[in-house]
Amino acid sequence: MTQPNITGKTRVHFLIGSPIAQVLAPGWLTERMRNANYDGMLVPLHIQKGNLESALPVLKAMPNVDSILITLPHKFGASDFCDRLSERAKVLGAINAMRREPDGTWFGDNFDGAGLIAGILKAGRSIADKRIFMVGAGGAGSSIAVSMLEEGASYLTFHDLNKTNEQALYEKLAAAYPGRVRVGTSVPPDTDIVVNATSSGLRDSDPLPIAPDELTAKMTVADVITDPVPTRILEAAASRGCFTRDGTHMLDGQIGLLFDFMTAHVHA
Amino acid sequence: MTQPNITGKTRVHFLIGSPIAQVLAPGWLTERMRNANYDGMLVPLHIQKGNLESALPVLKAMPNVDSILITLPHKFGASDFCDRLSERAKVLGAINAMRREPDGTWFGDNFDGAGLIAGILKAGRSIADKRIFMVGAGGAGSSIAVSMLEEGASYLTFHDLNKTNEQALYEKLAAAYPGRVRVGTSVPPDTDIVVNATSSGLRDSDPLPIAPDELTAKMTVADVITDPVPTRILEAAASRGCFTRDGTHMLDGQIGLLFDFMTAHVHA
Repeated sequence: MTQPNITGKTRVHFLIGSPIAQVLAPGWLTERMRNANYDGMLVPLHIQKGNLESALPVLKAMPNVDSILITLPHKFGASDFCDRLSERAKVLGAINAMRREPDGTWFGDNFDGAGLIAGILKAGRSIADKRIFMVGAGGAGSSIAVSMLEEGASYLTFHDLNKTNEQALYEKLAAAYPGRVRVGTSVPPDTDIVVNATSSGLRDSDPLPIAPDELTAKMTVADVITDPVPTRILEAAASRGCFTRDGTHMLDGQIGLLFDFMTAHVHA
Repeated sequence: MTQPNITGKTRVHFLIGSPIAQVLAPGWLTERMRNANYDGMLVPLHIQKGNLESALPVLKAMPNVDSILITLPHKFGASDFCDRLSERAKVLGAINAMRREPDGTWFGDNFDGAGLIAGILKAGRSIADKRIFMVGAGGAGSSIAVSMLEEGASYLTFHDLNKTNEQALYEKLAAAYPGRVRVGTSVPPDTDIVVNATSSGLRDSDPLPIAPDELTAKMTVADVITDPVPTRILEAAASRGCFTRDGTHMLDGQIGLLFDFMTAHVHA
């Protein structure tokens, strides 16, 4: 590097979470900003669990800060500090991004699921009118489910070994998208898109989250896991002729969406 | 740039002030950190005047933040948020840097004057036992005066057209360094080091802050102004054979001191 690239005019964006050492978005999004000749950076801030309520008003009050990204454990709490939420964020009650609007208010959205969808759309495939099967009803799964249904998926079948998460997500979805959701543990034969939204596959010894013999060549199979890539279930899917998308496609899709969201209102 | 250089492990340092667009330290110090293979960055934060009291406790509570630099208008207010102050910071009642110590407490110091001194020391000249003449008793002048006396200068003569500032600084210095300070408007013939700590010289039309015919070749003449460089008074001093130091030497000296202060306790 030959010249300083942070100045007093550099626009500041934060990523808050606890822990914070594992996050990758600051490097990726700062690079994306530089490639777009946007003078900004994404700064990781370790905000501990009990400190969100004192920290967010302070961060929002800084005029050179344009947006705040949110990771665990603050995705639910941060939504209370927005003046307005996207439809999917309302259904989920959780956000992973908020930004200052031109009128000074803050708008929150949730791109966790949209990133996976963007990865599928970018490959020239659609979500509208498709039948979805998903395993996993935690944070990622919930966001994927809502985003799929909002994007026009005709039907979602899902389940989770954690029955509390499963029930909570079912209730949210059934209220927001009546008649389009059901709980089920096996892949219906007419499924178009299969999603693993569990952490099963992080380790070689993990059981497969989906039975491979329920997959057929016309299905698209997507996984949220970014390491290892591909997971064993994606390898099994590919060997059956399925089109596959791994966790890096989801992340890549989300980086683009987040960049657009964060820099939507460029300041002089 | 070919790879992302911000990660979740990057140590974060802040520079707080209002306004903030004019600051240069974030670029310089971040570059200095990179050159030293220290994974950190200095992030400019626009903290408005009334927000210091709510902001500082929040910033101090972030475990991935190691230090906070302070510029106008917060240099006085920030000292109240330190558990311990350097001697010169105590005399001044103002800080421009604070850091977290290994025991979790915060230590504040003031490097505004030390930067000018470092520039002189780096040129192989000393402050100890030297007689100083200074014009200007604002923030920069106050810090330079205290730092000079703490560094062992034998005597300081100074004045300021703003008599309130002049009186306030005189009282601080007379109490902390009795018998070594006096107010005077002309350069005593036995002066070793002459300092312009006013903004006179920023514009070509400014009057000279010091009468050139009071300067002799044995004197070192230093100026705090970084643009233009050299100022007219430094040109006049050089033409009389004086050794001169301009504002960029002071800034360069301060960057080194701040870097050492900010990274004194390196975290894994």
